[in-house]
Formats: sequence, C-alpha cells, structure tokens
Amino acid sequence: MAVYTPLAAEDLAALIDAYDVGALVSAKGIAEGVSNSNWLVETAGADGAGARFILTMYERRIDLGELPFFLGLLDYLSARGCPVPRTIHDRDGNASRDLAGKTVALIEFLPGISVDRPTAAQARSVGAALAGVHLAARDFPLSRANALGIAASHAALARCGAASLEGIAAGLSEAITRAAALRDRWPETLPRSVCHTDLFPDNVLMRGERVAGMIDFYFACNEAMAYDLAVTHAAWSFARDGSAFHADVGRALVEGYESVRPLTAPERRALPLLAEGACLRFVASRAEDWLEGPPGALVERKDPMAFMRRLHFYAGAGEDPFHA
Amino acid sequence: MAVYTPLAAEDLAALIDAYDVGALVSAKGIAEGVSNSNWLVETAGADGAGARFILTMYERRIDLGELPFFLGLLDYLSARGCPVPRTIHDRDGNASRDLAGKTVALIEFLPGISVDRPTAAQARSVGAALAGVHLAARDFPLSRANALGIAASHAALARCGAASLEGIAAGLSEAITRAAALRDRWPETLPRSVCHTDLFPDNVLMRGERVAGMIDFYFACNEAMAYDLAVTHAAWSFARDGSAFHADVGRALVEGYESVRPLTAPERRALPLLAEGACLRFVASRAEDWLEGPPGALVERKDPMAFMRRLHFYAGAGEDPFHA
Repeated sequence: MAVYTPLAAEDLAALIDAYDVGALVSAKGIAEGVSNSNWLVETAGADGAGARFILTMYERRIDLGELPFFLGLLDYLSARGCPVPRTIHDRDGNASRDLAGKTVALIEFLPGISVDRPTAAQARSVGAALAGVHLAARDFPLSRANALGIAASHAALARCGAASLEGIAAGLSEAITRAAALRDRWPETLPRSVCHTDLFPDNVLMRGERVAGMIDFYFACNEAMAYDLAVTHAAWSFARDGSAFHADVGRALVEGYESVRPLTAPERRALPLLAEGACLRFVASRAEDWLEGPPGALVERKDPMAFMRRLHFYAGAGEDPFHA
Repeated sequence: MAVYTPLAAEDLAALIDAYDVGALVSAKGIAEGVSNSNWLVETAGADGAGARFILTMYERRIDLGELPFFLGLLDYLSARGCPVPRTIHDRDGNASRDLAGKTVALIEFLPGISVDRPTAAQARSVGAALAGVHLAARDFPLSRANALGIAASHAALARCGAASLEGIAAGLSEAITRAAALRDRWPETLPRSVCHTDLFPDNVLMRGERVAGMIDFYFACNEAMAYDLAVTHAAWSFARDGSAFHADVGRALVEGYESVRPLTAPERRALPLLAEGACLRFVASRAEDWLEGPPGALVERKDPMAFMRRLHFYAGAGEDPFHA
C-alpha cells in the first residue's frame, strides 16, 4: 500500500488534459499496489457526465518494455467482453505517457469490492470469469514468458538457502526439495493461453456474487491454463494462513471454470501437482521478500508458511479438493 | 499517508448497512491522514443514484471525547452554507460507530483537488471561505482549547532542548527564545471564533478558483480569528521550503478574507506577530516529530527550518506582506 511519488495537482491536471476525458475534478492517492503508485481520478468526462479512472505510475519491478503486453492485454480482453478495465489512450493514441520522470497509464475504473471471505457462489463466478479470460486470450498476439515458473521458484528457494528458510520458520526448507521434485515432474504439454497467475481475491472486484472486474495483470504470461486455475484455487479456497481448506469454495471455483471451459483429462489429473507448484511459487517469492526486506521497514511481511500449509494439504489430500 | 487497519470488505459492508445510504459498491483505502485511516467509499445511495463518502477510522492522537466537537462542527458549518463535508449519521442518529475495535465516522465526500502551487485567485477564495467559517462558527455551542498555542509551542521547543534542535539544523534553537519572547507579548483580547488552525493547501479542495471543500478540522479550536488567518497566510504564501514569499498570493488571501469579514485595527496590527507565532507552532511540532520519529521509519519528516525561514521573513519584512 503506497503512493511512492508525490504528484502536484497541477501536473496531474496537465496530464489529464492530454486525454479526451474532460478536466480533472478530484484525485486521491490509493493505498494499493506494491510495485506502482495509484490514484483514483475523477474527471468531468468526455460528455460532461463525469468519469473515473485509475492512474497507475510504474515505480519498480515492472520492465517498461513489457507494458505493451500488459496494457494491450487489458484492451484485448475488454473488447472481448471480459470484465477487465480498458486502458485509456491519449489524444495521440498512446497507452502510456511520461509524468515526473516516470511512466503512467490511465485505466478505466471498475466499481466493486474485493472480498475477504469468499462464498462458494462468488468463487463459482470467479472460476467462470477466469475461463472466459483463458478463452478470449488464446489468440492475443503478444507473448510473455512466466518468470515465476517452477524452475524459477526452485532457483529462488535454493538462493535463499536451507538455513535462512529454517530461520524464517521451522520446516520451510522442505520447499527446496519439494520444488526440485516438482520441477522434474512438471507437465509441459497442457493447453496454454495468457494466464493471470495472481488472481487473489484482492485482484477481483465483486458486485454481490458477480465478478465486476479482474485487475492487476502485471504477472500475466503465457502458461498452462490449468496452472492458472490451480493458482486461483490456492488463493481462494483457504483461510488466509492456510490453516483451513474451504471445500465448497474450492469445488465451486472449478465448477464455475468448467461451466465455461471444461478441463481435459490430462488437466484434471495434473491439478494437484499444479497446485503444489502454485504454492511453491508464493512460498518462494514470500521467502525472498522476507529475507530481502530491510529490518524495521513498515512493509507487511507475508508469511511463506501460509503456502507451505496449502502445499501439504494438496500433497496429502484424501478427497479430491477440485471436484465434488 | 496510510491505511493502518486492514478492513474486510464484508465488515465494511455490514457497517454501511447501518446507514441509510444504500449498499456498499466499492471502497479504496486512500493515502491520506497521519492520525487516522481513510477509505473512499461508494454506495448505491439512498435513492439508488450512487453516493460517495470518506470513512475515517480514528487511530491515534485524537481524543475520542473530542469527536462530538469535530463532527458536530462539520454539521454546524455545513448547515450554514460553508463548503465543509457533513457527517453522515447512522439510522439511530449516531455520528460515529465502532468497527474492528476502533471508532469510525462516515463523512460526505466533496470532489475537488488540493493545489500545490496556489494562485492569487485561489488564495482569495480560500481567504473568503475562511472568513465564512469564522462568522458561521461564532455561536457553535461546543468549545475546545487550542492545545498548540504559543505557550505550548514554547514548552515543546524547550523540551526538545537547544542542543537537539541545533542537531536538526544550525540556527533552529533560536526558536526557543523567539517563542519565549512572543509568549510574553501575545495578544489575548482579539476577537475569537472556532478556528481551523491547520488550513494548508492539502486541506482545501478546489474546483478551479473556487473552494469546493475545507477538510481535516481535527486541530479546530477556539482561537483568535486573526491567528487562523496568519496560519493560513504562512501555509499558502510561500514556497514549500519557506525560501520564497509569494506576495500576490499572501495579499490576495487577506483581501479575500476581508471581503467577507474586515479585520479590526488591533487584528491588523497583530498580524505579523501572530504569523511569527503560527510559524513557531509548526517549527515546534515538526521538531518534536523529527526527534521522536523512529530511525528508519518510512514516515516523511517535515523540515522545521521551512517554518523558521517563514518566521524570519515575517520578523524582518519591510513591506506589509498582508496588504497591498
């Protein structure tokens, strides 16, 4: 949560004038995003009826050369009916601009709330919306490799080292051997599309039980679609600390997904293994962040063990956690 | 800038249901406020046409026993035509409620932007709006003493100590003797009302040259009205670091004020001294914050010298900085 770059209202007003959205009316820095600064911006609207946008300033972690992929994907999905915010282009057609030495993009604001305790009905909607993205994105002309796949997760965990991992929490170093084993068994022939790969509840805006918006595509990449479903399953179906699996939510998610795009038999078989890999992806990034974070920093440290618990659940699940 | 308390959407939705404002539609934590957390909240509206609010959660620094003063003042001023947000009362008439163990208030959202480089025309509007508040608030039935008057500022600076102040910046310890001298000469018979006492540009929402909102009344207290004008003059008429006085802005501010409420002769005479006192109030609080702030904290430290420079300007001004 942050606004890393102070922005003078006068400079913001001048930026907004480069778009056909009417004059700036209000702007509030919002406490979201760890790799960028965000403002909720209100303008008079092109038609004078008022309009709202998210202005995103890219601060770090994002390779600006990848912005055309991320921003183009939003437009591509939005044009195909997915609940995804459009990128607003300036009068010259640019999807991004420079402001205060940084790159910014103006993105459609979608109302909705990010739930903390998803219901099965909400998970069913999310599954269906995710499948819709997968189908819509299959012919998206740009591509991006997954920088956080199982091999990368294994390498990151190995760099952390067993001793450091045990220093974070007893038992965490097991992630290294788990990742190595999964890497050697990883299925490489499952059907692919552009995947979100980070569809946690805070990246979904709900209106009741309906998905009103899917946001924050900055980890999107070409991946196995069933892996994206496994990530989403791990993100939606557990208590935050991974201590409890909510079977109704997890099964509704897959049911919703299959109502739009039925899984193939190999995908179904691969789901438990893909879910373990998804858990290790978050264990790895959380462990790295934990060890790299400066002491005393006010950034919330996310517990890697919350995803080790999920991994143990998937590895040991007696009943099928994906299907009723 | 912060949201100190995570808030589950489900708990927020339940809170909103206690008000007659329609169901929760969206909520964004906003990066404003140092002593409270704030969310920009959208609801369906009592009439279904949509409505926006600021939800404030009081975290620290504020004595909850004083909330009836602060929230009642907003309603009192708003009812008298001042551009001040109303407090929304719940269905039982309460101006504040408890949520997640904290006290919260739902406050009208006013659109507008906080300028960084005020123009003379904007300062004139702010002066007029401030005078409007002073006239409207004269009969406000509650009262609150100024906890940050000249005696308190002197005591705070003395507690910091000359050595620590010099450690922040060479020349800063002069603030102690300046404050002692001002305290002994402080005028006690100037006309009073409820004063904002912290009306920096970020506490004013502008629509072009018009004041659309005055916010953050959490330092409001019964004070000499001319002191409030002096605070506002020091806050609006200088470069942020105090290095340059913008004469046109400073004079337009006072002109706008006097267009609504002409100053008395004693007030006019007292303005330079009151402005020096206003500067010392901010020198004192900034010095205390500087010395108290934990090392490495991510909170921006505001430079006390920015107000020592203003003080020197007021103490040595050849021309009248308040009137043309």
